[in-house]
Amino acid sequence: MSWEQWFSDRVAEREAAGLRRVLRPRGAHDPVIDLAGNDYLGLSTHPDVRRAAADAALTWGAGAGASRLVTGTLEVHQQLEDELAELAGWPAALAFSTGYHANLSVVAALVGRGDLIVSDAHVHASLIDAARLSRAEVAVAAHNDAADVARILTANPGRRTLVLVESIYSVLGDAAPLEELAAICAAHGALLVVDEAHGVGVVGDGGRGLVHAAGLAGHPHVVVTVTLSKAMGAQGGVLLGPASFREHLVNAARPFIFDTGLAPASAAGALASLRHLRAHPDLPAVIRTRVGALADALAVEAPAGAVLSVPMPSPQAALAAQAAILDEGVRVACFRPPSVPDGISRLRITTNAGVPDADWARATEVVTRIAKEHR
Amino acid sequence: MSWEQWFSDRVAEREAAGLRRVLRPRGAHDPVIDLAGNDYLGLSTHPDVRRAAADAALTWGAGAGASRLVTGTLEVHQQLEDELAELAGWPAALAFSTGYHANLSVVAALVGRGDLIVSDAHVHASLIDAARLSRAEVAVAAHNDAADVARILTANPGRRTLVLVESIYSVLGDAAPLEELAAICAAHGALLVVDEAHGVGVVGDGGRGLVHAAGLAGHPHVVVTVTLSKAMGAQGGVLLGPASFREHLVNAARPFIFDTGLAPASAAGALASLRHLRAHPDLPAVIRTRVGALADALAVEAPAGAVLSVPMPSPQAALAAQAAILDEGVRVACFRPPSVPDGISRLRITTNAGVPDADWARATEVVTRIAKEHR
Repeated sequence: MSWEQWFSDRVAEREAAGLRRVLRPRGAHDPVIDLAGNDYLGLSTHPDVRRAAADAALTWGAGAGASRLVTGTLEVHQQLEDELAELAGWPAALAFSTGYHANLSVVAALVGRGDLIVSDAHVHASLIDAARLSRAEVAVAAHNDAADVARILTANPGRRTLVLVESIYSVLGDAAPLEELAAICAAHGALLVVDEAHGVGVVGDGGRGLVHAAGLAGHPHVVVTVTLSKAMGAQGGVLLGPASFREHLVNAARPFIFDTGLAPASAAGALASLRHLRAHPDLPAVIRTRVGALADALAVEAPAGAVLSVPMPSPQAALAAQAAILDEGVRVACFRPPSVPDGISRLRITTNAGVPDADWARATEVVTRIAKEHR
Repeated sequence: MSWEQWFSDRVAEREAAGLRRVLRPRGAHDPVIDLAGNDYLGLSTHPDVRRAAADAALTWGAGAGASRLVTGTLEVHQQLEDELAELAGWPAALAFSTGYHANLSVVAALVGRGDLIVSDAHVHASLIDAARLSRAEVAVAAHNDAADVARILTANPGRRTLVLVESIYSVLGDAAPLEELAAICAAHGALLVVDEAHGVGVVGDGGRGLVHAAGLAGHPHVVVTVTLSKAMGAQGGVLLGPASFREHLVNAARPFIFDTGLAPASAAGALASLRHLRAHPDLPAVIRTRVGALADALAVEAPAGAVLSVPMPSPQAALAAQAAILDEGVRVACFRPPSVPDGISRLRITTNAGVPDADWARATEVVTRIAKEHR
């Protein structure tokens, strides 16, 4: 069989299973109100952020031109790292070209064959891939079950161990018991790796994230991943930890060493978002107000973060609701098996603090009405 | 032992071994002539490319705002993919946020446990990580040894097999025997994955790359990775192949599905570079002329691509020469063990077609004189 035939067969299989997904390019002036992406503060398109990204492209060029250790470290990377570390309360930060790379790096540079990874059952694909890449042994802990993590650590004394969690989970929108997990890690000598992809910019005092809110910034048994492509409105990822952690990564993390530095416009865009957040520390409260009201209207539990997850009776009902909502000019996302941890199809509605009040009111009316019709 | 102590110990070990590397941020108006990066055509800082990247940031915002399958596919991604596929002679292209992601994706989405990967001994870290991530069995073939590849394929009949090579290797600058490898793959039903990171924009008619030059564009047993952060001057990676290959990746490649789309400024910067290359098809010839003359002056073999590798008698001699060259205002890179496949330390000198003639003349005089003094 030819390779082209093999590819076509895979496509046909997905089509038959109702799982074929296609890319739908959008224009720059899309009239649809977007409650599907992860631009939680609307900063990706804020005039100051656009301008900072554009100025960086004019000043530095379109690319960093080399890997970070050769000549691809720019002053704008350093500024971004310094200011993000300060905002989140950590001694040091290191920027990567994607959050995926940050997660691959922290895991693969810290553990290897013979070591142990305890991974929450709901962590992001990048942490699952990171664990696989590291070749460490992986134990999956029940979701948000600190006792299960403690049980696994107790059964594995003396092993170098990472515990992988997210601060706020993307699909269900629930928060991890970070204080309890950090205490368990400290008691067992393990390191807690917290992915704040959906936390920084969204929760905590001034959007400093859930780790900071839990009083764990700078904790000796915690390190953090931050994504620059969600609330920070750009592209990239950052790891936060002690200065020696940063230096170890610079010398040991292959997805850092063998990758071109983050593009200047992305670094400067994220930096402008961070500065905007610092100047407007009440911005994340808009998310809380909006998501709380929408959760009430939909009669679902308010999430810890910005994403509201609305269970639907079937994949077909979820798709039909999504299409009807789009017909009225509002885009929401839809999670169906196998992308949901419990097999329940959902509408995924993102709270975006940057959507103007009138649009937000119209969008939530549409979503509430149509979701109810399909439940 | 605390984790911070563990990190510090790793740092101290590297310091003791003379292998500690540090980041040195550079300014936007660095007076040093850069022959160390991978901006082979100087397009990262070309006025048209800067302008296109800046305009995209103003038009689209600093980030794509979501993963490609949600709302993160922009018209500028589609344009980039269409025009790059056309330039390189393939039916379809798919853009990723880094070249690393493209390599992780193509391998992990095409083979898995029980399948076979035949990997050239000198391939890039991203392909090595990709092979590990896929969980397929990995057989390392001797560098650029098509007979060794044939031997491994013959010993493994009937297995789904990828053969991983680069068109032009970064460290030694040599080219792969692509026609022979493609014929061997076709005879055995294997798929040849060619990383053109150092080929596209540099070699072949109009910079179309070595795969196109070898008459293999569109070959049923070949697919290609292109990097957007080297000759294309931006950030990102692209996979080229049949339309069914693209669609399979969209549905199966986790580092594509679970990653935010490439930032608009990076996509637009790469697109502007590509259009500049199409309008100036003789630009890659500047690289050939420059690298040939410099190879003659240094009495080393001219490389297949843009990177000249100059063996030095010791790591100390390589470092001393690099420092002396920098003292005279020219930056070159230095490869030492363990980053070299054969243990020989080298100066790595990048030909950059964008460096003005007078600067190029001065830089090559400096490099030639000092390299000779240290050999």
